[in-house]
Amino acid sequence: MSQHSEMTAQQEQARREQELTEQVTASFVDTENPRLRQVMQSLVTHLHAFVRDVRLTEDEWNSAIEFLTEVGHITDDRRQEFILLSDVLGVSMQTIAVNNPVAGEATEATVFGPFFVETAPEIPIGGDIAGGAAGEPCWVEGTVTDTEGNTVPGARIEVWEADEDGFYDVQYDDARVSGRAHLYSDDQGRYAFWGLTPTPYPIPHDGPVGAMLAATGRSPVRVAHLHFMVTAERYRTLVTHIFVEGDPQLEIGDSVFGVKDSLIKTFAPQPPEAPTPDGRDLAGRGWTRARFDIVLASEQ
Amino acid sequence: MSQHSEMTAQQEQARREQELTEQVTASFVDTENPRLRQVMQSLVTHLHAFVRDVRLTEDEWNSAIEFLTEVGHITDDRRQEFILLSDVLGVSMQTIAVNNPVAGEATEATVFGPFFVETAPEIPIGGDIAGGAAGEPCWVEGTVTDTEGNTVPGARIEVWEADEDGFYDVQYDDARVSGRAHLYSDDQGRYAFWGLTPTPYPIPHDGPVGAMLAATGRSPVRVAHLHFMVTAERYRTLVTHIFVEGDPQLEIGDSVFGVKDSLIKTFAPQPPEAPTPDGRDLAGRGWTRARFDIVLASEQ
Ligand SMILES: [Fe+2]
Ligand SMILES: [Fe+2]
Repeated sequence: MSQHSEMTAQQEQARREQELTEQVTASFVDTENPRLRQVMQSLVTHLHAFVRDVRLTEDEWNSAIEFLTEVGHITDDRRQEFILLSDVLGVSMQTIAVNNPVAGEATEATVFGPFFVETAPEIPIGGDIAGGAAGEPCWVEGTVTDTEGNTVPGARIEVWEADEDGFYDVQYDDARVSGRAHLYSDDQGRYAFWGLTPTPYPIPHDGPVGAMLAATGRSPVRVAHLHFMVTAERYRTLVTHIFVEGDPQLEIGDSVFGVKDSLIKTFAPQPPEAPTPDGRDLAGRGWTRARFDIVLASEQ
Repeated sequence: MSQHSEMTAQQEQARREQELTEQVTASFVDTENPRLRQVMQSLVTHLHAFVRDVRLTEDEWNSAIEFLTEVGHITDDRRQEFILLSDVLGVSMQTIAVNNPVAGEATEATVFGPFFVETAPEIPIGGDIAGGAAGEPCWVEGTVTDTEGNTVPGARIEVWEADEDGFYDVQYDDARVSGRAHLYSDDQGRYAFWGLTPTPYPIPHDGPVGAMLAATGRSPVRVAHLHFMVTAERYRTLVTHIFVEGDPQLEIGDSVFGVKDSLIKTFAPQPPEAPTPDGRDLAGRGWTRARFDIVLASEQ
């Protein structure tokens, strides 16, 4: 075959592939909802570009269908493997990024995760969220301000975390409520509570998503963290974590890409004899303390 | 906020989004299989570009998770909704396009579909594939050649199609085998058989994929077609259809984007009194005839 006809075949091939993508996007022109039309057309364009870029084989396509089928079949009311899949591909975190545009020095957002519960108990400032959960005590304190530096009193601060074994209360079969609470910032925007020094834990990895992580040499473990959700009128709701400086998993990487440098905080170890900020008697145990100053963006 | 700091916030936002994509692709660097690494990194890049392009909202992300969950839950041994989803997004057809590169005048490939059966009966040239399936008789004939014009004797030709009600044999609850067979080209590469004039039929549309088609104003109907799979040693296997010229669904569009202009064939109506090519007595019924000359590409 001559050089010339080689080129022609390649060009004809590219033309056919491009034409197909255009046919598919054109099939959505009668979509009544313009936003749905835009989303579907963009999805098609990017999926087709993926297939063309990697020259996806039919065996690979079959594997993808089988993989998605397994993800569907393990998913039930308690296990959401599609969310895990979105998380480990960074799609969840990218969605959070586009929905939390940079606003001055506003605290960065990160993944919500599956373990939030609406009905966590209220505690006073300085109260304890542990509720019997095992772990090293940790004093967390800070302020809530806005991007202009104004204090935000009365902000609702939800906090939740795993125990020292890496499990949230809802992962146990009993009905315990532990490692979670909410409190409100005071009239100077200050807050403080006792929690547990966070420890790393793996995401559920006994399903197809875990198999994918294993096949790609990735760790299922999340960097040790403490969840926050902060709401206050006229401010954008902040869903975030703070991460533990020095956690070895920081080097390996967070399995769901939630870490931002600005969210890594010092959890300073305190000897048992160090006086606690509120005079609490820890019965001779060591503890840590961390500071997290929260900056809220204005509602758009 | 000044024009200058506006720009800075936008730039910082773009930097964060780009950095996230790079973190996720970097997480796959330890994948042992280089092809798996390439596929995963490309998938991540394109999925992130989609999220960024449409500025996917968190509600939309939730809807996507729910949609995929429904697709997973309706899928079982008999119903494969992920394949339907791939089909209606043109992903199946694009995969076929990249795996069947242009080779001279080789016949174009199209979707395989879910209704092929390995064990269809053999018929002689001129035999009938109907096996009791209802429909208008149709005489199909042609040759099998290669891209150099050489005849291909002994090519195995599998053909299958729906009956006049739009159902394949395997969609009935009984164990019927009808509307399918295989035959071999003769020593001059010729073949011919009696089938049924194809009629349009919808893909299964009572599930989430059907709901998506309805929401986007799309038809679930496929253009009337007859399936072919042609195999011969040293040639690339050809999976294709021929489509019925004049089918009104051609204007509306094929729900899985299988149509290529080169695959649209005249099914010429014949009056009952027209003599049949092989002298068969059709008991006074009208019939059609179509010609499909098949050109095989050499194995790569
Ligand atoms: Fe968590
Ligand atoms: Fe079909």
